[in-house]
Amino acid sequence: MDIVLIGSGNVASHLAKKLYAAKHSVIQVFSRSIENARSLAEVINAEAICNLEQINVKADLYILSVKDDVLSGVAEAMPDVKGIVVHTAGSISIDVLDRFSNYGVFYPFQTFTKETDVDFSNIPILVESNDDTIKCTLMNLGRELSNHVIQASSMQRGNLHIAAVYACNFANHMYRLAEDVLDKSNLSFELLHPLIMETASKVQKASPSATQTGPASRKDYKIIDKHLKSLDSGSELQEIYKVLTDSIIKRVK
Amino acid sequence: MDIVLIGSGNVASHLAKKLYAAKHSVIQVFSRSIENARSLAEVINAEAICNLEQINVKADLYILSVKDDVLSGVAEAMPDVKGIVVHTAGSISIDVLDRFSNYGVFYPFQTFTKETDVDFSNIPILVESNDDTIKCTLMNLGRELSNHVIQASSMQRGNLHIAAVYACNFANHMYRLAEDVLDKSNLSFELLHPLIMETASKVQKASPSATQTGPASRKDYKIIDKHLKSLDSGSELQEIYKVLTDSIIKRVK
Repeated sequence: MDIVLIGSGNVASHLAKKLYAAKHSVIQVFSRSIENARSLAEVINAEAICNLEQINVKADLYILSVKDDVLSGVAEAMPDVKGIVVHTAGSISIDVLDRFSNYGVFYPFQTFTKETDVDFSNIPILVESNDDTIKCTLMNLGRELSNHVIQASSMQRGNLHIAAVYACNFANHMYRLAEDVLDKSNLSFELLHPLIMETASKVQKASPSATQTGPASRKDYKIIDKHLKSLDSGSELQEIYKVLTDSIIKRVK
Repeated sequence: MDIVLIGSGNVASHLAKKLYAAKHSVIQVFSRSIENARSLAEVINAEAICNLEQINVKADLYILSVKDDVLSGVAEAMPDVKGIVVHTAGSISIDVLDRFSNYGVFYPFQTFTKETDVDFSNIPILVESNDDTIKCTLMNLGRELSNHVIQASSMQRGNLHIAAVYACNFANHMYRLAEDVLDKSNLSFELLHPLIMETASKVQKASPSATQTGPASRKDYKIIDKHLKSLDSGSELQEIYKVLTDSIIKRVK
């Protein structure tokens, strides 16, 4: 397939390299910054463009991988194309692309960092389209990149994104709060490395409701009180400790 | 060293097996339930006892690895011994053992599950004692089991335990909340597996303040509002989403 990639951020970069490795021809990379477009384009042997009017209208697939808040604007500004137009955004409905004749969603569900290589084959890809032939094309493309391709509605994708906010963004924030506690006590965050890996590993095999440990899960009010007292009164750390402890206790059977 | 192990729970079991593998002789295992004492004792070739009076008073080291809320009671009820008495509890001060002539703390800092083998060599061990010779003995013992043995005061240990509540217990609770969101949408928790591992892996190499991603970290109020609206109004999920989003936003520079 001849593919045009609109965007040069984290998702676009990882996707581009993986598509290139799977022998697809990414013919153009668009970015508003021509430098960014070039630095990705040269890796995958594509043309760098910085103007949406330069888009080759004869490609088979257009992947819009831009920031959520500019996605709808970019979709509006694109030339009319006959190929399939997809976006890669977890939180945006498929409808943002309904001006095109062929469109869908191709959402690789993972947190990407530009510098870090990611094993794409384990990353779930969520596909959506109103058209069965397009859905089939996108599913097949997904299967070339990943072992875990599923169909999901915009509603399901939105909820998966919310779930990811908890499991990834909020979990990472818990690590930050832990680092704050350690900093105050002149202890290194490294002490938590094995514990953090172990906690994440456990839920790869069991439901997180089965792996819950700690004072709240055993209703150990003595320790909870001790912890609350040693956190600064009225501090954010103390407030969050209370809210999450209550939430865990509510679920103890 | 001849060691008496008081307790047969998760920490006691893992410690016992590792000590046995390191050629230390665990001569007795105490548990109030003789069955529990036996099932651990037979693995490490020790005597099972269920009465504190049966404790061999001539051992070199007594490891109290019992639940926090019974620790002080067990310490009181133990016979007078000359060997070193240590406990393995993160949240309990060294002072709980001050009736003994030689005492300290030997705290392997990890979340243990009985069924799962743990690579002890990466687990930090925190050692405390008021006596330099004892401290040295405990540090040396620690180094036989782990590559990461440090001295820490009761205060530091307490704060490390609080940090662990955030990084482990609360992070796991975030996984549970994510599972709730997915359940409601008929999506499998498995979808989050790679993301959870990736999130935990990232902070092995960088500070969690550098790895924070998501709508709150980029002050994407449009997505935040969308998420809050799609969570049930006044629900726990929504409340926690708000509290943690605010907390992340406050730290955005």
